[in-house]
Amino acid sequence: MESKELVGACIVGQSGGPTAVINASAYGVIRTALESKNITRVYGAAHGIKGILDEVIYDMAEEAPYELSLLMHTPSAALGSCRYKLKNADDDETDYQRILEIFKKYDIRYFFYIGGNDSMDTCSKVSSYLQKVGYPCRVIGIPKTIDNDLALTDHCPGFASAAKYVATSCMELYHDASVYDRNMICIVEIMGRHAGWLAGAAAAAAYMGQGPDLVYLPETDFDMDQFIEDVKRLYEMNGECFIAVSEGIHDKDGTLISEYGADSVSVDAFGHKQLGGLAATLVNILKGHLGNIKMRGIELSLLQRCAAHCASETDVQEAFKAGKAAVEFAINGVTDKMVGFTREYDEDNEYTCDISLFDLMEVANAEKKVPREWINEKGNGLTQEYIDYVLPLIKGAPKLVYENSLPRFAHLRKIPAKLKKKD
Amino acid sequence: MESKELVGACIVGQSGGPTAVINASAYGVIRTALESKNITRVYGAAHGIKGILDEVIYDMAEEAPYELSLLMHTPSAALGSCRYKLKNADDDETDYQRILEIFKKYDIRYFFYIGGNDSMDTCSKVSSYLQKVGYPCRVIGIPKTIDNDLALTDHCPGFASAAKYVATSCMELYHDASVYDRNMICIVEIMGRHAGWLAGAAAAAAYMGQGPDLVYLPETDFDMDQFIEDVKRLYEMNGECFIAVSEGIHDKDGTLISEYGADSVSVDAFGHKQLGGLAATLVNILKGHLGNIKMRGIELSLLQRCAAHCASETDVQEAFKAGKAAVEFAINGVTDKMVGFTREYDEDNEYTCDISLFDLMEVANAEKKVPREWINEKGNGLTQEYIDYVLPLIKGAPKLVYENSLPRFAHLRKIPAKLKKKD
Repeated sequence: MESKELVGACIVGQSGGPTAVINASAYGVIRTALESKNITRVYGAAHGIKGILDEVIYDMAEEAPYELSLLMHTPSAALGSCRYKLKNADDDETDYQRILEIFKKYDIRYFFYIGGNDSMDTCSKVSSYLQKVGYPCRVIGIPKTIDNDLALTDHCPGFASAAKYVATSCMELYHDASVYDRNMICIVEIMGRHAGWLAGAAAAAAYMGQGPDLVYLPETDFDMDQFIEDVKRLYEMNGECFIAVSEGIHDKDGTLISEYGADSVSVDAFGHKQLGGLAATLVNILKGHLGNIKMRGIELSLLQRCAAHCASETDVQEAFKAGKAAVEFAINGVTDKMVGFTREYDEDNEYTCDISLFDLMEVANAEKKVPREWINEKGNGLTQEYIDYVLPLIKGAPKLVYENSLPRFAHLRKIPAKLKKKD
Repeated sequence: MESKELVGACIVGQSGGPTAVINASAYGVIRTALESKNITRVYGAAHGIKGILDEVIYDMAEEAPYELSLLMHTPSAALGSCRYKLKNADDDETDYQRILEIFKKYDIRYFFYIGGNDSMDTCSKVSSYLQKVGYPCRVIGIPKTIDNDLALTDHCPGFASAAKYVATSCMELYHDASVYDRNMICIVEIMGRHAGWLAGAAAAAAYMGQGPDLVYLPETDFDMDQFIEDVKRLYEMNGECFIAVSEGIHDKDGTLISEYGADSVSVDAFGHKQLGGLAATLVNILKGHLGNIKMRGIELSLLQRCAAHCASETDVQEAFKAGKAAVEFAINGVTDKMVGFTREYDEDNEYTCDISLFDLMEVANAEKKVPREWINEKGNGLTQEYIDYVLPLIKGAPKLVYENSLPRFAHLRKIPAKLKKKD
């Protein structure tokens, strides 16, 4: 058991795919750490764990407080992100030795890492190694992912803002795609490899009466024949059909629908397949069966994860709170945990969100999917349970600062950290 | 010369591609007409001129005033739109005879048509025919187009909201696309066949310090070799490159770049080529020259023209004013005109916008392009003149009504018009 009082520097890193609020979490860490008497210096790692390995480290105290405050509503990862997978320390200690060396050099006693499943894996591995070698350092993971697929926590910062963008855009597209007398079949492709939380948000547009007819998630097997039949029936009935699909939908054999007819699929450093082009693939297949109907495939692409102008203020504030809580817990002796959220309802049945702590090991590499019972029987829509889950999360207009009626995002100076001479 | 006092019904139609504010113009017409003592009934034509030909006509007085008021911020065309080209009356009078028949049947004495160049053509033809046959009816066109390519008017309702979405999205994508240590080449494809006004808005993001390195408009010839060289140079220098392109860019022979390697290009009723896939085409070409660099093509697709949540309130209010002014002018005897805007600057050098009248014939089928001197010499960026032109237009957050933190768009009842028995 570590002593409660631990004085030293802290470092914060961001990792994995960006979101609209990962910087709000970073700001929660940085501001709280800058104000803490136990934390001597506040460092930012350039591009997550890679910045530690490469010793590209910024001194956050060199940033103007106003610019730091703009991080609250600046999308993407201001410190830079990475998709770097640490080997198991048992197989290769090189990276861990280097991390230890840098931590010692900068007297880093607090490590905060903001990311998804893979980042919690990194966090967990670093924490275990430092414990093994007996280097006192408190390690806390802070969740973020538009995929919302982290285990144990009720939801992840970043998800709700992306969900709000998806629902809003689907409502707008609903109006656009049905404007002519001879309308179109419109297919919107939404991110989410294995979990359909984000694609599910399209159902919130349908709940508002202005959204897709069909929503497909990767939690169920996609049946192409049934799909073609459903689209045909709806088009014949309504003269239009609006479909939302998660990029990760697959058939009963597990083959990704986006691979139907694709020449090749590239793979990233974690072995994840790089998806995309699903909407176009489905349009091609439908054209083969339904003939000369106007169709349009729309990929929300990077837009859905960086749309800070359409963020959920609830999400922004929770992301900040998660970062702030991480520092406060760490100062109070907590380590090897991920901060997360537990959902509560107050006496007026209003949503509230409590900060909880979860074991890093339990979160790392696990995936939480949309419960099967939140998806309708046919697997082409969501139930009221999903709507009740998502609506409180997307609440509130983002309090962006505007200049020329365009967002005024943070400009960081990114001054390299200089080590003080020993006193 | 018509007598000034003309009493009868009015009909309003919407035509061409939707925008975020074409409904604000419709609301300007409808509300003003409902309040006018000279206008006996207010009709809405389903799908523009097609609704008149097919006699699908709604009674706007049957709509709840609150729902009508929501049209201010509801995207797309609530009455439905069309892309129907009237033949010249000299060649074939069929459609015109039918329009006259319907106008007589419903005692329509005011015709308001909201649309782009092609719609002003329709308007002008109907107006000429009605004058020729001596049927007193005042015809006013109300501009709308995200392309901003109508002649004479300083700008067109719909453009500024799309421009704001383009600039905002480019700022957000700038942050997302540069987040990794090994970054990507990102190409954003923006609508605009022959005029680059909308793609130019990407330069407003660059003006904010967070936008594309290169912006290409159809006003200049696109030189593929120069493009590849510029991208290569920038990528080598910065480790990333962010490019915005108008869908209509073409080489010096006039061949569309989107057709490079394309199998076929479909053509709509006006003979316009249906573009798209340009970003993907450019990505493929760059991959051939620059090798294994991560690249992403992003098509803003329909999203850019229906993003009411990111509209310019200036645009919304001007669109409403244009509709309102159309009715007021018509009641005062004006016909055969398009309402448009003249830009003024007040004593504090603040932008103001005056309503002007332009001859329909002069506007119909003409196209206004971005002045060559507003594009830099190399043809890969915009000058300060463009920025000064666009920034006042995008001003103001849209005053949307929200429900569940999602837009509450109008739901119209669309009650078919019933003719009253003659008194």
